[in-house]
Amino acid sequence: MNRKFEFTHLNALTPNDFKTVDTDPNWLKPRGVWQRNRAIEWLREHFKDSANENGVVYFGDDDNTYDLKLFEEIRNTSRVSIFPVGLVGGLIVEKPLVANDKVIGFNSVWNPKRKYPIDMAGFAVNLQLLLKKEEASFSEQVPRGYQETHLISQLIDSLEALEPKGRQCKQVLVWHTRTEKPKLRHERKLKVPSTFGMIDD
Amino acid sequence: MNRKFEFTHLNALTPNDFKTVDTDPNWLKPRGVWQRNRAIEWLREHFKDSANENGVVYFGDDDNTYDLKLFEEIRNTSRVSIFPVGLVGGLIVEKPLVANDKVIGFNSVWNPKRKYPIDMAGFAVNLQLLLKKEEASFSEQVPRGYQETHLISQLIDSLEALEPKGRQCKQVLVWHTRTEKPKLRHERKLKVPSTFGMIDD
Repeated sequence: MNRKFEFTHLNALTPNDFKTVDTDPNWLKPRGVWQRNRAIEWLREHFKDSANENGVVYFGDDDNTYDLKLFEEIRNTSRVSIFPVGLVGGLIVEKPLVANDKVIGFNSVWNPKRKYPIDMAGFAVNLQLLLKKEEASFSEQVPRGYQETHLISQLIDSLEALEPKGRQCKQVLVWHTRTEKPKLRHERKLKVPSTFGMIDD
Repeated sequence: MNRKFEFTHLNALTPNDFKTVDTDPNWLKPRGVWQRNRAIEWLREHFKDSANENGVVYFGDDDNTYDLKLFEEIRNTSRVSIFPVGLVGGLIVEKPLVANDKVIGFNSVWNPKRKYPIDMAGFAVNLQLLLKKEEASFSEQVPRGYQETHLISQLIDSLEALEPKGRQCKQVLVWHTRTEKPKLRHERKLKVPSTFGMIDD
């Protein structure tokens, strides 16, 4: 791996009751709740004495597609940044509707009753705000699609506080692409795994 | 788009007889033959008086995953570079077998009778060699899986001429990831497309 930035790999076990089995549709059970909460917990431990530390927290996915400009945009996040996401919610673009630099609604079709009907890739949070709201976290008890609303509701009170990014939410800088599950049918037949002797670096 | 490098978008129509319909498996008909040949043709037109132009030709895919080091590795290609590809051919890694800096075989399980049993992402070609071999191209008449062997066979005579990259083919720098087809079921219901009013740049 090309170590031009600092990183920390964390892991958290999903309790057995919440694990998806191969035949389950991928939305049946909450996904990533314990892992994202582990990351939030790490931030709280790591920055507990760093009230002046600037930072922005973004919940990225390894198979989303990012325009690097996104990271420039969210660098300036005082509370909660919000922006369009491509290829999610059954739409070409799911996006906040903005007037006079304020979010006044969303174009979401899937479950539009949610207060913040957006994807996990569609918002970023100021680090100090996340630290200040000590209890803010994701939850395994909220219905499907409500993780984002659940977290953001613990951080701000209303749409007014959202900070639209990407040219007033007119620009797509992240796409919810999904990677296919790799087919490894021949690997199982090998006596020696194909990775034998390979090096990482 | 972030224009830090020169690029040219080309397009070529796949003849109707060769078009896949939605119910066909994606391997039924040759894919990308006319498009890659259009690119080769463009190179021949564009560099026809440039016998001193250095260059390397690589057939990338928009949904593969690349380590940027790959492009450093293939920069130095006198004839045909070759290197491992992750998550292809039913294996975790499909790779050339190398001894004393020469390719002596392949670990491929799928159709190992091919002379060069590798993926499109697993080789790169010196520009001048491609220009010199004026007839070299892909073909709609070769069986499934034979495009790479077909092209490389027109450029070099034997495995001996292959140039192993990525630490003697012990390092994976490209993965044949595939992106799922996006689900846009709500888009069809919209009176105004979700992209209305969005800007590109």
